[in-house]
Amino acid sequence: MTTDTLTLQQLVRGQDPHRLRAWLDEQGALDIAEELVRLEDEDRAVPFRLLPKDRALAVFEALDPIHQKELLEALGEIDADQLFGQIDADDRARLIEEVPATVARRLLASLPADSRDNTNRLLGYPEESVGRTMSPRYASVRSTMTAADALAKVRRAGLRSREVLLLPVTDDQRRVVGTVDLPDLVTASPGTTVGELTRPDVYSVRVDEDQEVGARLVQEADLVALPVVDTEDRLLGVLTVDDAMEIIELEETEDAMRAGGLEPLDVPYLEATVLRLARKRAVWLLVLIIAAVLTVNVLGFFEDTLEEVLALALFIPLLIDTGGNSGSQAATVVIRSMAVGEVRLSDLPRILRRELVVGLLLGLMLGIIAVPVVSIFFGLDFALVIGSTLLVICTWASFSGGLLPLVAQRLGVDPAVVSAPVITTLVDATGLIIYFLIARAVLGI
Amino acid sequence: MTTDTLTLQQLVRGQDPHRLRAWLDEQGALDIAEELVRLEDEDRAVPFRLLPKDRALAVFEALDPIHQKELLEALGEIDADQLFGQIDADDRARLIEEVPATVARRLLASLPADSRDNTNRLLGYPEESVGRTMSPRYASVRSTMTAADALAKVRRAGLRSREVLLLPVTDDQRRVVGTVDLPDLVTASPGTTVGELTRPDVYSVRVDEDQEVGARLVQEADLVALPVVDTEDRLLGVLTVDDAMEIIELEETEDAMRAGGLEPLDVPYLEATVLRLARKRAVWLLVLIIAAVLTVNVLGFFEDTLEEVLALALFIPLLIDTGGNSGSQAATVVIRSMAVGEVRLSDLPRILRRELVVGLLLGLMLGIIAVPVVSIFFGLDFALVIGSTLLVICTWASFSGGLLPLVAQRLGVDPAVVSAPVITTLVDATGLIIYFLIARAVLGI
Repeated sequence: MTTDTLTLQQLVRGQDPHRLRAWLDEQGALDIAEELVRLEDEDRAVPFRLLPKDRALAVFEALDPIHQKELLEALGEIDADQLFGQIDADDRARLIEEVPATVARRLLASLPADSRDNTNRLLGYPEESVGRTMSPRYASVRSTMTAADALAKVRRAGLRSREVLLLPVTDDQRRVVGTVDLPDLVTASPGTTVGELTRPDVYSVRVDEDQEVGARLVQEADLVALPVVDTEDRLLGVLTVDDAMEIIELEETEDAMRAGGLEPLDVPYLEATVLRLARKRAVWLLVLIIAAVLTVNVLGFFEDTLEEVLALALFIPLLIDTGGNSGSQAATVVIRSMAVGEVRLSDLPRILRRELVVGLLLGLMLGIIAVPVVSIFFGLDFALVIGSTLLVICTWASFSGGLLPLVAQRLGVDPAVVSAPVITTLVDATGLIIYFLIARAVLGI
Repeated sequence: MTTDTLTLQQLVRGQDPHRLRAWLDEQGALDIAEELVRLEDEDRAVPFRLLPKDRALAVFEALDPIHQKELLEALGEIDADQLFGQIDADDRARLIEEVPATVARRLLASLPADSRDNTNRLLGYPEESVGRTMSPRYASVRSTMTAADALAKVRRAGLRSREVLLLPVTDDQRRVVGTVDLPDLVTASPGTTVGELTRPDVYSVRVDEDQEVGARLVQEADLVALPVVDTEDRLLGVLTVDDAMEIIELEETEDAMRAGGLEPLDVPYLEATVLRLARKRAVWLLVLIIAAVLTVNVLGFFEDTLEEVLALALFIPLLIDTGGNSGSQAATVVIRSMAVGEVRLSDLPRILRRELVVGLLLGLMLGIIAVPVVSIFFGLDFALVIGSTLLVICTWASFSGGLLPLVAQRLGVDPAVVSAPVITTLVDATGLIIYFLIARAVLGI
């Protein structure tokens, strides 16, 4: 068996440090991080200690905060303190929230004074705000500086590579008046002033703003970093593109979970306890089943009709499924368009008009297919009931699916909660009323 | 009325160029782009022509390819050709796919020879491949160069700022052996060799690889650019972080659409014709309704049972909704965990065990709540039927929701197609069988 085919787990269990080291040398930092989290918590320290210093840091930074915490606990106190001192202030702030309070105190105490100050400052901002994720270290320049002076300042600042990709330009009150790209400083002739190289658009974000707003701005404006400012536009730090991408991934995960009808998990799936998984789903499942009691009432109300023509019962699942699907299609499109900023509240009339027509077209299509097929087994009258119910339900569901996310936003609720399960449950009760009213009218019950 | 409260549309209709220009001066490029697309196609050229050159380019780049195409058509030939020459080769390639063939020929002919060459090369790679999105312009350096020489090469290359944030390090066969960050070159002492500044991990992506793979690598490894190579590891271009973020947003939109049970729209919602919207949904709606015919058959099979205890019909929607919700919750969590790489095929046994337990817990909770409530109105025996059906359906739905995305992946299908609507429809038919079998057993029918 060659080293390639062995997993990290087998290598760790095999207790052969040479083979283990050979394996670690072959793998990239991302791959090592990925395999590391698949080991039992207490096994992770062994391969980690075998890594050279710079690679160990790269692997550590590739882990998410939960796994970083577990690894810190598995490492001895000295190793942990050292590692903690090397990572970025914003990563440190996130990590501090994960570890128990006593460990947090020890770790913070182990830092040199200036790093401690940075981490503490980040911890003062509200959760999910830009302040929590920004890097409090930056190199700002002045419009009047020459490119050569600005580059000299970057050299002196001693910052990490990603903290100087874009430099905020400030005035003498430390207010952000623009940004300049490091490459533009490098390629300009040394005497050019920073003012001449400043980007035409000034972008910045308030420190207490939702982190998603900052991250989306980085994405839309194609920035590599975004200046973070206080209420008076004074520079506090920068939000770097790698942090922006991480925020967007987290927010996308939240939206995906909500769309599936559950509360977002805050930890990786395989790390979550079964009880936590159940709790995240229980709330919505309960809300939805209580809403579904409506359908029992509606059917109870029409029990006589049902007794007279029992065949009506056979089509209940098919009709409500189709309504739910049509509604969730409409809601999905509208929610996504809102998330990426293509659609806003003022577009409501246009959206409703479109969804009405789309629903009508889809309902017509399904109705026209259903009538001949159903009439073979159940007769023409009955087939007309099914066909026209499909038409009305599709139109109604599509309309509601387009309307509800916008209503949610108007009420200040995240539109993503209008998930497929929510729409389905709401459309079901109304769909059944439509079904039985049509049946009574057409069949003359 | 001040300029603030006027929309771009009102300003354009008002035909007062001074006010319009004042408004344009006040707004950022992103805001202008956003308002521009809300105008009728033919009105867009007017405000656009009033913008100074560099701002016009920024606004144009903030539009997506569909809107860029429409604007090019609204502008005169000369303006369009000029604008087309100024944008990036990769944006050009995307735009060329949107415009009609005759316009494409004219636009390509208007380019200087070297830009044309770049655009044509990009067009040769398969759709959605890294090759289509990469920037074919880069500045590569050698390990043996000094930092000063490398910076001199960056200065001579005359590239855009984002193309030189990270420099590929190549050997004498143009093979990528590493990367170096521009800031590290800037801050190093001039005599340091590039080799000493090279990142410890070598990242690159093959030109024919799926663009999402490249974009996710940029995200996970916190890169600002990723070297793109051919089958022999030779450098062809770089995938920059702004393009990677755009790819991820597109892919997330696709996944969100699939999760809602429809084919992804390729154009912004408000731009799509109603027919296109309907077509994107029709396929899935048809597939799902055909699957739902199963439920009609199941109910037909149990028609006698239903006739005997009509009350059973009243709970059909509630039970199948709950099964569908529970299944879609499980599928959502598993699909998302697969998308972000937390879970893979080999985790199948663990996932199934967890989903089985979670489903059981949720089913127990719902069952325990349901029995006393239902027994008040329908008697204890009937309540036991509903309670135990909830227990079994939740467990079964949760298990299937965890299983199906992994089965899809094993079969080479995008796991995202196992959407809430698909799970719901599949779980419905089996859920009904469970319901009636339990009813027969408990009620002794």
